[in-house]
Amino acid sequence: MSKFIEPKRPKGFRDLFGEDIKLRNAMLDKIRAVYELYGFEPLETPAMEYVETLGKFLPETDTPEGGIFALQDDADEWIALRYEFTTPLSRIIAQYPELPLPFRRYQLGPVWRVEKPKPGSFREFIQFDIDTVGTESMAADAEICSVLAEAMEKIGIQRENYIVKVNNRKILNGVLETAGIKIFLDESNLTQLALQTLRTIDKLDRIGISGIEDLLTTGRLDESGDFMKGVGLNSEQVKIIIDYLNITSKSRKDFCEKLKSVIGNSRIGLDGIQELEDIDRYLSVIGIDEHRVIFDPTIVRGLTYYTGPIYEVFLTFDITDENGNKKQFGSVAGGGRYDDLVQRFLGKKVPATGASIGVDRLLVALKLLNKAQVQSAFPPVLVTTIDKNLMLEYQKITAELRNAGISAEMYLGQGGFKKQLKYADKKNIYIAVILGSDEFENNQITIKDLKLGEKLSKQIEDRDKWRKEQPAQIIIPRHNLVNEIRKIIDKSGLSQIKYK
Amino acid sequence: MSKFIEPKRPKGFRDLFGEDIKLRNAMLDKIRAVYELYGFEPLETPAMEYVETLGKFLPETDTPEGGIFALQDDADEWIALRYEFTTPLSRIIAQYPELPLPFRRYQLGPVWRVEKPKPGSFREFIQFDIDTVGTESMAADAEICSVLAEAMEKIGIQRENYIVKVNNRKILNGVLETAGIKIFLDESNLTQLALQTLRTIDKLDRIGISGIEDLLTTGRLDESGDFMKGVGLNSEQVKIIIDYLNITSKSRKDFCEKLKSVIGNSRIGLDGIQELEDIDRYLSVIGIDEHRVIFDPTIVRGLTYYTGPIYEVFLTFDITDENGNKKQFGSVAGGGRYDDLVQRFLGKKVPATGASIGVDRLLVALKLLNKAQVQSAFPPVLVTTIDKNLMLEYQKITAELRNAGISAEMYLGQGGFKKQLKYADKKNIYIAVILGSDEFENNQITIKDLKLGEKLSKQIEDRDKWRKEQPAQIIIPRHNLVNEIRKIIDKSGLSQIKYK
Repeated sequence: MSKFIEPKRPKGFRDLFGEDIKLRNAMLDKIRAVYELYGFEPLETPAMEYVETLGKFLPETDTPEGGIFALQDDADEWIALRYEFTTPLSRIIAQYPELPLPFRRYQLGPVWRVEKPKPGSFREFIQFDIDTVGTESMAADAEICSVLAEAMEKIGIQRENYIVKVNNRKILNGVLETAGIKIFLDESNLTQLALQTLRTIDKLDRIGISGIEDLLTTGRLDESGDFMKGVGLNSEQVKIIIDYLNITSKSRKDFCEKLKSVIGNSRIGLDGIQELEDIDRYLSVIGIDEHRVIFDPTIVRGLTYYTGPIYEVFLTFDITDENGNKKQFGSVAGGGRYDDLVQRFLGKKVPATGASIGVDRLLVALKLLNKAQVQSAFPPVLVTTIDKNLMLEYQKITAELRNAGISAEMYLGQGGFKKQLKYADKKNIYIAVILGSDEFENNQITIKDLKLGEKLSKQIEDRDKWRKEQPAQIIIPRHNLVNEIRKIIDKSGLSQIKYK
Repeated sequence: MSKFIEPKRPKGFRDLFGEDIKLRNAMLDKIRAVYELYGFEPLETPAMEYVETLGKFLPETDTPEGGIFALQDDADEWIALRYEFTTPLSRIIAQYPELPLPFRRYQLGPVWRVEKPKPGSFREFIQFDIDTVGTESMAADAEICSVLAEAMEKIGIQRENYIVKVNNRKILNGVLETAGIKIFLDESNLTQLALQTLRTIDKLDRIGISGIEDLLTTGRLDESGDFMKGVGLNSEQVKIIIDYLNITSKSRKDFCEKLKSVIGNSRIGLDGIQELEDIDRYLSVIGIDEHRVIFDPTIVRGLTYYTGPIYEVFLTFDITDENGNKKQFGSVAGGGRYDDLVQRFLGKKVPATGASIGVDRLLVALKLLNKAQVQSAFPPVLVTTIDKNLMLEYQKITAELRNAGISAEMYLGQGGFKKQLKYADKKNIYIAVILGSDEFENNQITIKDLKLGEKLSKQIEDRDKWRKEQPAQIIIPRHNLVNEIRKIIDKSGLSQIKYK
């Protein structure tokens, strides 16, 4: 073993630098503004909760600790990093009975899951949630759909590039009931057969209708060649499910009508349709049409706690996957109604609904669409330090710029002029200020426009003319420094940081 | 055991709601602007690092895992929640050799420590760090002092209410050397005796000079009545240390002169004085005088990795402690130079300096000073829902307000009008919109000014006159709704959320 430590990050984690953080924060500011426009207020809960609070709601994991980062604290109690914000919210509702209901809050921050590290999937990722707790009204669900649509448009995703898809767990249960599958084990837990069936349906986009048929009955070989056991339904049962999945309509109203013929007399299924009809009415009255929010039978959502309407936001523009095939960008947000989650604490139902935006994936999408444009701030002015006898003078110049609200740094490294310009280049700096002993004595100073210099060195023809008109380097009286730099900043079209 | 889970937070953690979060974020925005004005860029590292990366730098803990939240990941490697940002930064510098040096970054976020839960002290707290890596220049250290001073003033702490105190580990080492105490065990680790002496000095503000004398020699009884063993120095050694601690001067220059007489011929001590003289020059040339940054012999700072100048920001206004005694608010930020930290990875020194603001404590201070004033946004308008037949109409009104950029919510709970007004009151809402069936038919709508109503009900005399002039409730034509509400918002002096 080397005597030195290897500098490395834990697997599945990331480092983020300058511009990426600024782009993300600009996007988050816009989403936050939409959330606040809708009357939601911020909430922050700890990174860690008791494992018991978090419960066992991650799909595809079987033990309470499966999929989460857990440890025993100094009192030997099991605590773990939150893996989402909904279970902590349910703890908040139970712990603070004085909160006015309906409680409308947003929460932003990282969550952690022990996922297999793979490209684009991380163990620490940022979610931006919005929830309304304490109302059964479908107006709340309609509002979640419209706030999501609004947020997409606010950050620059055009109407044809996203769609909010809505379904209802009650309708899915109705289909199961119609197919003769027992739904509930007890008041709030699904049977194993119901869960298996739903999770199979949730694979539709990956394995297609025929794959679903195989998996619901006898099983199928997956891509890796392993055999996946079937759920064991008979062909009549599967037909009902497939008929349901094949329902399509560009009209929310018409979709509900078609559903009725598949659902038959299932009470819970009809309740679900009724809820979708309510949502349609609330959306339609405010002009949110099927170009923004549609109903879709194939939306299932993995988490077991959903009890009513479920939503998912898809970005519909094409990307090229790792195999060179075109496919839609896919899901960037999702949620649903979870009327039983607070019950774990209080023993009484507190109806709730909400959604979560996957911030990291959404930022990737924005970049692909070239929409992640932050109004970039003008980079710091570099005060070069070429004469070590003038260090205090350089310090004074730097302070002068900062006092005028101009972001500035004095070069603090060891290198000479060439190295300092290279540093400026690496940092994408626009302006360098240069002061030599001659200039110092003559009360002059040099401003070097590095971006213009770069442009000029590429434009060989007409270079002399160009240079004469827009010199990349000017010598000015020292007392004009701030004004001259302000002029260059103004011409750049970039903003100064909001300081004053 | 009850069948229900008790809703509780893990010990030492917090929940934060609405206004507190907004106040804090407003403060952080201002600090961020100062950091960017000084040319620093954001960096984000993961919440978790390998335990080996984090190292053993927390004071008063003896095992690598002491004081931190650690667990074994799925590859059986020990990872832990970061307890500060400096060791992750050193990992970044070692892992990304392509970064331009000096690397100037800020980092904001929570850090975690397993501290004994006590009032005002938490296991998850927010730090806002600023560091410059890759320069030995004291200009960098002077810059950290001035950026801290600037940040304090920007968030509203006046010049007489804060002071940046600076000392130098080399000077402390010089005092130890002069007192005949061996300083270094090897190239970069202090001897146990040096550490014990420094940690004793660090207790000065709690136990006073005579307490220090006792602890440095034979020991003393602490407040709880337990005997604390002494360090075992002799009286000559202690005299040198006490003489040093008693140096005071309101002039940085004069302080350095007085130091020289105590330090004698210690090479490392004289180097330290030289560094402080440099810092003084860089600060003086930009007009940062002793009302903002002073030198102080009693600043030690617990972390073992500091190697040069150390800084601490104190808020100097008085507060009343739990025993009713007046005392200064105390430290809200600190830092120093740590030239050896990257060496753990690379084997070569990379000089670095920086500081960390304790965000939570600073916010407490701002609130005490009544300076935590966010330009409050006008609260959401509440569209009441008194007639269930008009739900779609209420939804339309809500959307109309939102489309005009006015934050609004439709009441989604079950209760009647009284309950809805109570909800508005609890949420500090200013305006309720009311629509009954009569008004609906007449194309009218009622705006209720809840704050004015509140004021009126307290002002019994002249109530009628007042009411006539400024009615707390007005009936207006439906199409005037947005305009009328805008007028009320304008009159309130509160801002609308920045949406358009």
